[in-house]
Amino acid sequence: MPLGTGNPAPATGPWRVRSDGGYPGGVTFPVVGMVGGGQLARMTHEAGIPLGIRFKLLSDTPQDSAAQVVSEVVVGDYRDLDTLRDFARGCDVITFDHEHVPTEHLRALEADGIVVRPGPDALVHAHDKGVMRAKLSAIDAPCPRHRIVADPADVSRFAAEGEGYPVILKTVVGGYDGKGVWFVRSEADAADAFKAGVDVLAEEKVDFVRELAANVVRSPHGQAVAYPVVESIQVDGVCDTVIAPAPDLDDELAGEAQQLALRIASELGVVGHLAVELFETRDADGVPGILVNELAMRPHNSGHWTQDGAITSQFANHVRAVLDLPLGDPRPRSKWTVMCNVLGGDYPDMYYAYLHCMARDPQLKIHMYGKDVKPGRKVGHVNTYGDDLAEVRERARHAADYLRGTITE
Amino acid sequence: MPLGTGNPAPATGPWRVRSDGGYPGGVTFPVVGMVGGGQLARMTHEAGIPLGIRFKLLSDTPQDSAAQVVSEVVVGDYRDLDTLRDFARGCDVITFDHEHVPTEHLRALEADGIVVRPGPDALVHAHDKGVMRAKLSAIDAPCPRHRIVADPADVSRFAAEGEGYPVILKTVVGGYDGKGVWFVRSEADAADAFKAGVDVLAEEKVDFVRELAANVVRSPHGQAVAYPVVESIQVDGVCDTVIAPAPDLDDELAGEAQQLALRIASELGVVGHLAVELFETRDADGVPGILVNELAMRPHNSGHWTQDGAITSQFANHVRAVLDLPLGDPRPRSKWTVMCNVLGGDYPDMYYAYLHCMARDPQLKIHMYGKDVKPGRKVGHVNTYGDDLAEVRERARHAADYLRGTITE
Repeated sequence: MPLGTGNPAPATGPWRVRSDGGYPGGVTFPVVGMVGGGQLARMTHEAGIPLGIRFKLLSDTPQDSAAQVVSEVVVGDYRDLDTLRDFARGCDVITFDHEHVPTEHLRALEADGIVVRPGPDALVHAHDKGVMRAKLSAIDAPCPRHRIVADPADVSRFAAEGEGYPVILKTVVGGYDGKGVWFVRSEADAADAFKAGVDVLAEEKVDFVRELAANVVRSPHGQAVAYPVVESIQVDGVCDTVIAPAPDLDDELAGEAQQLALRIASELGVVGHLAVELFETRDADGVPGILVNELAMRPHNSGHWTQDGAITSQFANHVRAVLDLPLGDPRPRSKWTVMCNVLGGDYPDMYYAYLHCMARDPQLKIHMYGKDVKPGRKVGHVNTYGDDLAEVRERARHAADYLRGTITE
Repeated sequence: MPLGTGNPAPATGPWRVRSDGGYPGGVTFPVVGMVGGGQLARMTHEAGIPLGIRFKLLSDTPQDSAAQVVSEVVVGDYRDLDTLRDFARGCDVITFDHEHVPTEHLRALEADGIVVRPGPDALVHAHDKGVMRAKLSAIDAPCPRHRIVADPADVSRFAAEGEGYPVILKTVVGGYDGKGVWFVRSEADAADAFKAGVDVLAEEKVDFVRELAANVVRSPHGQAVAYPVVESIQVDGVCDTVIAPAPDLDDELAGEAQQLALRIASELGVVGHLAVELFETRDADGVPGILVNELAMRPHNSGHWTQDGAITSQFANHVRAVLDLPLGDPRPRSKWTVMCNVLGGDYPDMYYAYLHCMARDPQLKIHMYGKDVKPGRKVGHVNTYGDDLAEVRERARHAADYLRGTITE
């Protein structure tokens, strides 16, 4: 077979992050620098392996979830600008496992000429809930009633401006998985939220039907894909189950949610994966609607189902987006996919339970994070898929409960 | 939600490779030691990440395909017993990217108490084609006519014992991808095969209809799964395309091929993935049959389609098998899956071609190995799947050819 002349790249272009070669031999497959060593980084690395992408990790400790499986690990503090600068050297693009890197550090990196995706102008909306709500209101994205509140008395004024208590209070930065969030029934209840010395955002308690999530991925040149809208079920403020697609969701509302997420991604200049957590509501006439609850600009728990349920996973598409590679097909591969998070139980060793779950269900897709088991901590998730939602859901539920140890058969 | 007491493991059992804990916190997820840093190791590591398995690699160089993506890499020579012994310390099980580790070293490791899977008594059949043919004949597995030959004159005698020339000569150890194999039309042609000073096996040239592969995975406690039988198309002695399942394959013959592969795995005591490469033949009456061509006791090129085409990939099942975990479902997820290998072309940089292929086909699954591009070298593969075989095959073919550079549009 005669060899052709190959397909050399143009000398420059939006896809060509750098031209000095990531590999020996002049091959220019790029290096992605991931800030944060959690499970999202771990699974993004996993998705980058088939893409031929080199991965460099900035991790808090050498034992972090992602640090266990990545070749190039820098142990350091992401809150330290010099550490970030050293880490970024030799990376073609910097992206994130979490939204906690101070925005001013990201701006400093960009000023150094480092490619940061998503960039600070976008990421600030995931970092700071006050900025997020202001921006969403400015672009007429439907939100719960909200405003920054100064103290408990101001919370009562906020409540009185609407339907009264209860009210939701959130620290504008630093919260996740129910932390930094308070469900407040009275002015006395409100005091805790102000103790951290961080700005506090008040939001009306939405009387929602259920929670949905619209996941989209956007690349720097503006290509974007939308995953099917999913239902997300929370227990004690932590994501418990995700069903893809959301059962019995009105088609028009699903399209509206996807359009909204795509519009937010575009208006906020997001690059990479954007999760828009939504409340599904009913008005007095029973007409369904949506309100934006939270944004996350990184792969997200509500998108873990895509690893086994979509043609291209959220992790692969996040990598593709931050490198400005063409995005992969987000469509589902099965009629139904269900994800259940695996939380730690009282017993620290899951290996036997894990073995049992594999034996019980050879189709089960287990994703373990390599994390120490602590009660209530997310240590993994399971995905199941198939044509019968009740059966698919039961399989995922059983595995998650058995792994946690809340059932023994 | 109340936490249960968890599901502790019995103190001993076949699944409990060790009990001193691979992770901090007493969690006993095991460590797999992989000898060899090629793409099979790379993809096995990828499959081990969601399983929560720690991976340790013995690699020839720090640039090897797998060494680029694994956290714990030991650079060393697998032909050196002390290196193997040092490497094996801290691993719960040793497995392999290739079959070139000397059998006597594997026996020495086992004598040290190290768990080696597949073990030397099985692996010798993949390491030494002479031993393989003798064993397959002993268990009445259908083989081409064969025997060890002493010199070119003996090759002529072997030819005369059957249908005459042409004859296939193979060095009993060290060959792969067409290397160490000669297609011999005359006694004069036969000289090359004896130059290496390795025993030479002669085999009749089989007049086959096509090549098939039956891939199975077997665990130490004897559980086994069989993947659908695939068609494997070779070009210049190198695997080019794999179609899963093999089109128009007689159902009975497919079952026979799967049974044969399972029987070989059991009789040879294989643990892990076994690829049985087969010739499909027709007798004088047009009745189809099969003959065993080669064996490989590791994940195999004919099983790469399983990454995107089966419920559980060959890599995940290999990891599960060597740890004696229950095996995953081997059934296909799509009607057809096609794999085409990506060979290097003249141009060393595939990044632009790769970008083009992603843009052209958002459903394409690209798997790059991080290897330098050299003409004819396997540097990756692509998988496509769907309901229309002609279309699925064209998509894989186009991507592989475009990446190699033999087509430019």
